[in-house]
Amino acid sequence: MRIGILGTGNVGRALAAGWGGAGHEVVLGSRRPGAPEVRAALVPVLGENVRVSDLDAAVADAEVVVNATPGTVSVPLLGSVGPAALAGKVLLDVAVGFGADGTLYHLVESLGEELQRTFPATRVVKTLCTVDAGVMVAPGSLDGPSTVFLSGDDEGAKRTVGGLLRDLGWTADSVLDLGGIGTARGQEHFALLFLGIAGALGSYGFNVRVVPPTNG
Amino acid sequence: MRIGILGTGNVGRALAAGWGGAGHEVVLGSRRPGAPEVRAALVPVLGENVRVSDLDAAVADAEVVVNATPGTVSVPLLGSVGPAALAGKVLLDVAVGFGADGTLYHLVESLGEELQRTFPATRVVKTLCTVDAGVMVAPGSLDGPSTVFLSGDDEGAKRTVGGLLRDLGWTADSVLDLGGIGTARGQEHFALLFLGIAGALGSYGFNVRVVPPTNG
Repeated sequence: MRIGILGTGNVGRALAAGWGGAGHEVVLGSRRPGAPEVRAALVPVLGENVRVSDLDAAVADAEVVVNATPGTVSVPLLGSVGPAALAGKVLLDVAVGFGADGTLYHLVESLGEELQRTFPATRVVKTLCTVDAGVMVAPGSLDGPSTVFLSGDDEGAKRTVGGLLRDLGWTADSVLDLGGIGTARGQEHFALLFLGIAGALGSYGFNVRVVPPTNG
Repeated sequence: MRIGILGTGNVGRALAAGWGGAGHEVVLGSRRPGAPEVRAALVPVLGENVRVSDLDAAVADAEVVVNATPGTVSVPLLGSVGPAALAGKVLLDVAVGFGADGTLYHLVESLGEELQRTFPATRVVKTLCTVDAGVMVAPGSLDGPSTVFLSGDDEGAKRTVGGLLRDLGWTADSVLDLGGIGTARGQEHFALLFLGIAGALGSYGFNVRVVPPTNG
């Protein structure tokens, strides 16, 4: 599958390495693809299946576009790529933004919902934003099975994203479909409890498992 | 221990039964303790260790006060009891409020923080707000161990609350201390993911377990 990842931070790089290693054709999209510091940060990631380009080129040929840009600027950045370029594509959104005061940037409507509303012809799926970049691509590194969530209005897009999660090591029964894109609020607001747990554990390398009733 | 529980809804009743059954002396505080519908709802709960009274009387003799009132009205209700009556006591706060539009009522400062700020001589501990009333008092009903959280500025108060959690069946290693009362934000904001998971499972009878790294 051809995957365009917007954003070359920890998350973009981890996902590029994960999906590139699984045999997908990945293009990392950067606002400054030729900048020396961007090139330097990408050295460990670039290879046969992973290239870097500008944002427009990363989107142009992609079947799945990944939003790994800062949640505070995702909407204008994707707007600069344009609704026409994104139309019909799956947009796998992993971003969460924080304001300068440490509160969530999207307090009422979630970023996932705003993206779906802003790009109605794009099929937005929120996922992976409840775990750190390291756990996203190595769920087996934890002390037992854990849960990752899907939110989106398009069932076919969620199936596509579910397949990409399995390519990162997430088993089918570790993926919980929460429903429509409105449920992205829960995934994004979990960021606050995530930070509290990380502070208590002294590590971002954890996840949560949904524990059902004994007979559930 | 003498426990005053403010609020006679599902949560107040479940906690009263749980702690009464564990041998604590519980007074349920109601705005209308003599109202026939309040009495009727409390029939299964009242007994040797569990009484009902008005809010002031429930607080007066209590060592630990439990806020199980609706999160939207907790601050004025506790204000009507008064800062002097609450001074020095442990306030175990389990409440989360939702606005009419389904968003969290406390979007920036958490209810736990607002209570601590409003009643500075009271020792507020936020806990149990990430699980349903049934799970609060029967953590062993789930398909494996799960996690409950503590947030509060007073270490002694958190130890007291930790003991009360064990009386409900929470093992010591299922309780994760997140730190100061500021971390109550994470517990309260989890309500949105809680509702998403409940919708997906068709049940409120679940919890999450924090899964650490393999060597964590």
